[in-house]
Amino acid sequence: MLTSYHITILFLSLGVLLFVARGLGELAQRFHQPAVLGELIAGVLLGPTVLGTLAPDLSLFLFPLNGLNAIALDTIGTLAIALFLLVAGMEVDLSIIWKQGKVGTKVGIAGMVIPFFIALTAALVIPGALGRHSGVDPTLFALFFAIAISISALPVIARILMDMGLYRTDLGMVVISAAILNDITGWIVFAIVLSLLGNPAGNAHPIVLTITLTLAFTGLMLTLGRRLIHNVMPFVQAYTRWPGGELSFALCLGFLGAAFTEWIGIHAIFGAFIVGVAVGDSSHLRERTRVIIGDFVSFIFAPVFFAGIGLKVNFLSHFDLPLVLTVLGIAFSCKIMGGFIGARWGGMSSQESWTVGSAMISVGTMGIIVGMIALQAGIIREPLFVALIVMAIVTSMASGPLMRLILKTEKKQRLRDLLSSKYCIWELKGLSRREVIQEMTALVSGPEGLDTHSLVTAIWAREQLLSTGIGNGVALPHARVENLRAPLVVAGISKTGIDFDAPDGRPATVIFLVLTPGNEPGAQLEIAAEIAKLFRDPHILDQILRMKTFTEFLALIRARVN
Amino acid sequence: MLTSYHITILFLSLGVLLFVARGLGELAQRFHQPAVLGELIAGVLLGPTVLGTLAPDLSLFLFPLNGLNAIALDTIGTLAIALFLLVAGMEVDLSIIWKQGKVGTKVGIAGMVIPFFIALTAALVIPGALGRHSGVDPTLFALFFAIAISISALPVIARILMDMGLYRTDLGMVVISAAILNDITGWIVFAIVLSLLGNPAGNAHPIVLTITLTLAFTGLMLTLGRRLIHNVMPFVQAYTRWPGGELSFALCLGFLGAAFTEWIGIHAIFGAFIVGVAVGDSSHLRERTRVIIGDFVSFIFAPVFFAGIGLKVNFLSHFDLPLVLTVLGIAFSCKIMGGFIGARWGGMSSQESWTVGSAMISVGTMGIIVGMIALQAGIIREPLFVALIVMAIVTSMASGPLMRLILKTEKKQRLRDLLSSKYCIWELKGLSRREVIQEMTALVSGPEGLDTHSLVTAIWAREQLLSTGIGNGVALPHARVENLRAPLVVAGISKTGIDFDAPDGRPATVIFLVLTPGNEPGAQLEIAAEIAKLFRDPHILDQILRMKTFTEFLALIRARVN
Repeated sequence: MLTSYHITILFLSLGVLLFVARGLGELAQRFHQPAVLGELIAGVLLGPTVLGTLAPDLSLFLFPLNGLNAIALDTIGTLAIALFLLVAGMEVDLSIIWKQGKVGTKVGIAGMVIPFFIALTAALVIPGALGRHSGVDPTLFALFFAIAISISALPVIARILMDMGLYRTDLGMVVISAAILNDITGWIVFAIVLSLLGNPAGNAHPIVLTITLTLAFTGLMLTLGRRLIHNVMPFVQAYTRWPGGELSFALCLGFLGAAFTEWIGIHAIFGAFIVGVAVGDSSHLRERTRVIIGDFVSFIFAPVFFAGIGLKVNFLSHFDLPLVLTVLGIAFSCKIMGGFIGARWGGMSSQESWTVGSAMISVGTMGIIVGMIALQAGIIREPLFVALIVMAIVTSMASGPLMRLILKTEKKQRLRDLLSSKYCIWELKGLSRREVIQEMTALVSGPEGLDTHSLVTAIWAREQLLSTGIGNGVALPHARVENLRAPLVVAGISKTGIDFDAPDGRPATVIFLVLTPGNEPGAQLEIAAEIAKLFRDPHILDQILRMKTFTEFLALIRARVN
Repeated sequence: MLTSYHITILFLSLGVLLFVARGLGELAQRFHQPAVLGELIAGVLLGPTVLGTLAPDLSLFLFPLNGLNAIALDTIGTLAIALFLLVAGMEVDLSIIWKQGKVGTKVGIAGMVIPFFIALTAALVIPGALGRHSGVDPTLFALFFAIAISISALPVIARILMDMGLYRTDLGMVVISAAILNDITGWIVFAIVLSLLGNPAGNAHPIVLTITLTLAFTGLMLTLGRRLIHNVMPFVQAYTRWPGGELSFALCLGFLGAAFTEWIGIHAIFGAFIVGVAVGDSSHLRERTRVIIGDFVSFIFAPVFFAGIGLKVNFLSHFDLPLVLTVLGIAFSCKIMGGFIGARWGGMSSQESWTVGSAMISVGTMGIIVGMIALQAGIIREPLFVALIVMAIVTSMASGPLMRLILKTEKKQRLRDLLSSKYCIWELKGLSRREVIQEMTALVSGPEGLDTHSLVTAIWAREQLLSTGIGNGVALPHARVENLRAPLVVAGISKTGIDFDAPDGRPATVIFLVLTPGNEPGAQLEIAAEIAKLFRDPHILDQILRMKTFTEFLALIRARVN
């Protein structure tokens, strides 16, 4: 049992780890980098890499490698990663895949399959360059490497799209649904590969049984289990104190799912993830439960876990530049290519497809977790582990800038030319989303010779799929119109604000109705990106609200968009 | 390190423990019993008492007594109890003590000192009847026993007062401020007693140093530390993503406080508790942070911890009826007496004082924690531990019924006789708390020959101390008036609802202004209890809102109050 000494060290190490990890995580976000970068660096600073070199005694005092405190930290880390995957699963919204349809599915398939097979081939053909050590099964090594490259980090991708204001565009939806598909299939493939490892703990099942159980668990949880949870949830809400009942219900299921998948011979996190998907999918799950679990896990457990990864390995002595560059090269090229080919296959324009490719490259936290499990299982050694971590971080950091670069190259600056006093409603009369869309469509359809009714139907159908409030008081209802010659933008101001279900919850004051020709697939994206960029400055909305004429408004837009 | 086998058992045991603990905890609450009762029973069912007797292999498989899984559960339990005390500390509002003033302080002092010395004397005089085993220091044993009896559970007391609708009465404030004082001094005394134990872990300090450090830590944290945290909090909020920054800040401080107090030779939970008081006291701490930490700890960590207590001991084989009855007898008699004497000393009526005494008896979770630490330290043996747990639970269960019994004995049913059409405002014109109080006071002061201005001042001063919205749409502004002959109640209905800062956030629709004579101290309490009981039925408010005349209203009250 833990003695007073162990308890002191336990709380001291947790306090220090959490403090440094969260501090550097916040710092990373200040510079628009993923928080996990700062959290990993915290571990690097406190672990063998820095503190372990400068003051080895202090580092080992705080984070011993053996003994009860090592086990205590290991326990907390095990709990943390299962909860992290539970939350990651809860963020997966399966319905988006069905709603979004074919394009997303194609991007998802190509974005997974192409990187997977390129990385698999590379690992089989040039294992030396990838740091494969002798004694490891070549196929197993190649499979792990392929998964570490081809998996993607849904939360990171979603965050980047939101930051760029592209989350609610058609392109954003394609990327998100592809990433969800990628996430789920990635973890299933990973689970199957894990089963090939065999189970060292004595309760080893034959591989075929493990794979059968994995697929059966996944299949049942995502169909029957999902429906059962959805039907049981109202009872939990009715007969327990809220939100305690729901909270415990979700965590109990997560723990039991984790135990089950660990028992069948794959990893506990897979069960937690699949349970997360099943629980998070229920429309009965209330927002407060999501928030409590999400915040506690993201801000307490996840930082401790990711900092803990930095504690495990000396990142400096195991940093092998050629290996890092090789892994980075493979990851960048094959992931962009996968997304690009999938998007082209789905009928998107070249520019759009490059953007999709860049959006899909983030390996992020998921790659880190795969790498860590591979390291623990002895499939990879420290140098490749370090290279995978660097790759996971760099791909996440590069995704946003790459997308900006691609969207910028054309430099068409359409917005200033598209806005005109003719297509502007200075004071919208409509009070609802539907009314406003009707009002703005009616203004434009007559002069342009379009059918108001079918246009409203198309815009509304898009709106139903995922509403187009992008936050900062702006909404972008849009549609593609086959027989349109050039893009059309109608600007409308609603002083009362219209609820467009924006992620920041603010009603939309400025509404841009964007109609783009069927043969100009990239136009919508460019206009959306321009508008999002323009309104990132929170002061601009105040300025617009104080204006009296459309000319002032146009002058402001012209001054800003350049 | 944990192998796959250990990880499977870890998640399985956590899932099962949480499920049974929360399920029985909810069940206990259905029967208006504290959740901790159900959580303890869960441990009793799964541990050596029941499952360990029926299926010893299964019980030991799930909850092994040795090995890595025992350490893993111990780690989670250690974390859980520190976080539980952090939250308990955050619920302590020091300012209530200063605001409430002398009566609460007197009840707090008498309610702590009297049970402490009676229990201390009993443990020294009749140690055999209390199960003292040979080899333990008699003074240490007596001190622990005295603390286990005299400590009280603030959250349990607050919950009971809220359930009875007495939280916002003068009596409720006296009890709460006394319980806060009791809580803080109880833990400080406990910390000092712990320091007498000596520290077995090698970093033993001389006792004087430990006590000095304990007092210095407490003093500094509650003064300078508290102010520093209050001043740093806005920076945390300004420069970090919300609510992550605040959340991590609170937990980091809690962990470091726990490490510090464990290091100086007392228990980690004391540091977490004091940090909780300092953090929770800051008005900058936002509600969402409190909710996230509070819910996650109350519904996940606390149930696992309390069920874990049931796992440690065979409650049946160590159940010693004479010992249990002795402990119960001592606890009930000396705790009621302490509260009663304190309340009389503070000038309260006999009936009020008995109510205060009954309100102060809950030993609850705090007594359980003290008992567990004493057991771990070898100060007490299992039979006394079981008796202390039973005592802690029974006192919490008995507190509410006892108070109801005392309040019922007089059976004056004042409300129906006090309400009259003369003192009724069917449609209040006021739109704010202040306006409504003014309006209702003006109605009554003329006919009764009272000074409106001074009356409003008195009611408003009471309102400032703690607003009188009791929830369910009812508010009870009140004052004691020296030269009043009999209690006066003015009823007012506000269809728009007035914000009286009720715990359930609902505006007050029905407002009762309660004025009681200075020489009838019990009157206010009885009227408040009657009103609270009446409006516990949520339908009654709807009925009142549908009424057209005061006569209907009066008929309803008369029909209900009997």
